[in-house]
Amino acid sequence: MPEPYAFLKGHGTENDFVLLPDHDGTVHGDLSADRVRALCDRRAGIGGDGVLRVVRREGRWFMDYRNADGSIAEMCGNGIRVFARYLLEAGLVDPTAPIEVDTRDGLKVVRVDGDQITADLGTPRVLGDTVVGVGATSWPAQHVDMGNPHAVAFVDSLDPHGPVGPLLDPPSRDPERFPDGVNVEFVVRRGERHVAMRVHERGSGETRSCGTGACAVMVAAALADDARPSGSDVAYRVDVPGGTLTVTWTTDDRVLLTGPAVIVARGTTAL
Amino acid sequence: MPEPYAFLKGHGTENDFVLLPDHDGTVHGDLSADRVRALCDRRAGIGGDGVLRVVRREGRWFMDYRNADGSIAEMCGNGIRVFARYLLEAGLVDPTAPIEVDTRDGLKVVRVDGDQITADLGTPRVLGDTVVGVGATSWPAQHVDMGNPHAVAFVDSLDPHGPVGPLLDPPSRDPERFPDGVNVEFVVRRGERHVAMRVHERGSGETRSCGTGACAVMVAAALADDARPSGSDVAYRVDVPGGTLTVTWTTDDRVLLTGPAVIVARGTTAL
Repeated sequence: MPEPYAFLKGHGTENDFVLLPDHDGTVHGDLSADRVRALCDRRAGIGGDGVLRVVRREGRWFMDYRNADGSIAEMCGNGIRVFARYLLEAGLVDPTAPIEVDTRDGLKVVRVDGDQITADLGTPRVLGDTVVGVGATSWPAQHVDMGNPHAVAFVDSLDPHGPVGPLLDPPSRDPERFPDGVNVEFVVRRGERHVAMRVHERGSGETRSCGTGACAVMVAAALADDARPSGSDVAYRVDVPGGTLTVTWTTDDRVLLTGPAVIVARGTTAL
Repeated sequence: MPEPYAFLKGHGTENDFVLLPDHDGTVHGDLSADRVRALCDRRAGIGGDGVLRVVRREGRWFMDYRNADGSIAEMCGNGIRVFARYLLEAGLVDPTAPIEVDTRDGLKVVRVDGDQITADLGTPRVLGDTVVGVGATSWPAQHVDMGNPHAVAFVDSLDPHGPVGPLLDPPSRDPERFPDGVNVEFVVRRGERHVAMRVHERGSGETRSCGTGACAVMVAAALADDARPSGSDVAYRVDVPGGTLTVTWTTDDRVLLTGPAVIVARGTTAL
């Protein structure tokens, strides 16, 4: 068993993470997939959709993000908001200035306004039509890339007793388009510029929220509504099972994810 | 927001608990159902099947157990084993003697043997035949009371894609026999004195393990096998999704639950 080391637990709209402070890189330089899986195990471990290792690299805070299954991912839209909340609460950044966070998908800028934290997730890439399926049902879907791949399907109902089901298994997808899997969002309309979604994340299963997924959903909805920004930004409310996010598509073709992000516990573990 | 207070997280065969040390009763004298729900929330909180408040009362350690939904329960077979592990690791009890733990179901005796912890769960009551169902399928079941009610059904397969299904909803049961609901165990045989089970717990949904459920299953299996103890104790291996338990039915008609129990994290929270 390793020496006990520090952790925190936090979440953004119930997309939850185990944070591992490792500022100088000496605690978890060898963070293994096994340890990530043990930490994220919801019964035998602490529980989380992923791990955010906090490390200082080349003068910047670097978000070393891992999926719950131990795999490495480029970016996590809710994770970076929780990461910024940690930096703020730990007094590691100037609370009056935008926070720069380095990621495997490049440098990101995060802004804090009270309990709301906004992450700039960059320019979406809309890559055309595809199909996703659950059991015997399939739906047309939009392929939207937010640094990671998404397939967005508009459906009649999100009810787990309906065709979308309990999402115990990954939905079927085009294996040539998505050889490494894809995050699949199921979406219903709730009102003008207001949608609700459920998501199956590759590597994590169904989660209560997915930040890049909410952004992909907003882009697909805005395009379907012929509401691409021109002259002014366009904002949608996106309800996820764990809360409410606001996604703004700016006139300079960037997507901003806004919502709450909190730290709920801190301690030590030897998992 | 309250002042930060101490917590631990532990589990027995992945039946997991948030422990709240409150030895003199001054920290959580007013432990509310809302706080229990917040602590047990797997995404927005720490996550657990229940809370074990550790308090000293009338010269004994008292297990103040709460279900994840905030309700009060008399006893928890895996919980009391995790509770004993905490007392041991905190140096609060003599490691060489049986540990007495007071509960709402009376005084219980727990014995530790390395990584295995055994709790004496008392005398089973076998109360006759009933029926449980999932969707269009129903099975005959045995009503066994272990201080709480269980319906034990032998099935052909535990596969969540089969008739038992993903257990998203409580199985149907006889509402006259079980007006307040029932814990339902689905059981397959794996070998001689060796069974495997899944369980739907009233108030919690499907869990990775249920201590009293494993005991009820063992009693039903032993009766079906005509293996009621006479002359010597009878032991069964009971596989649960979260691990392996051993259940022993003694010649003096008591049921002993044996398995691992560990503490995996400790820290503070203000949930």
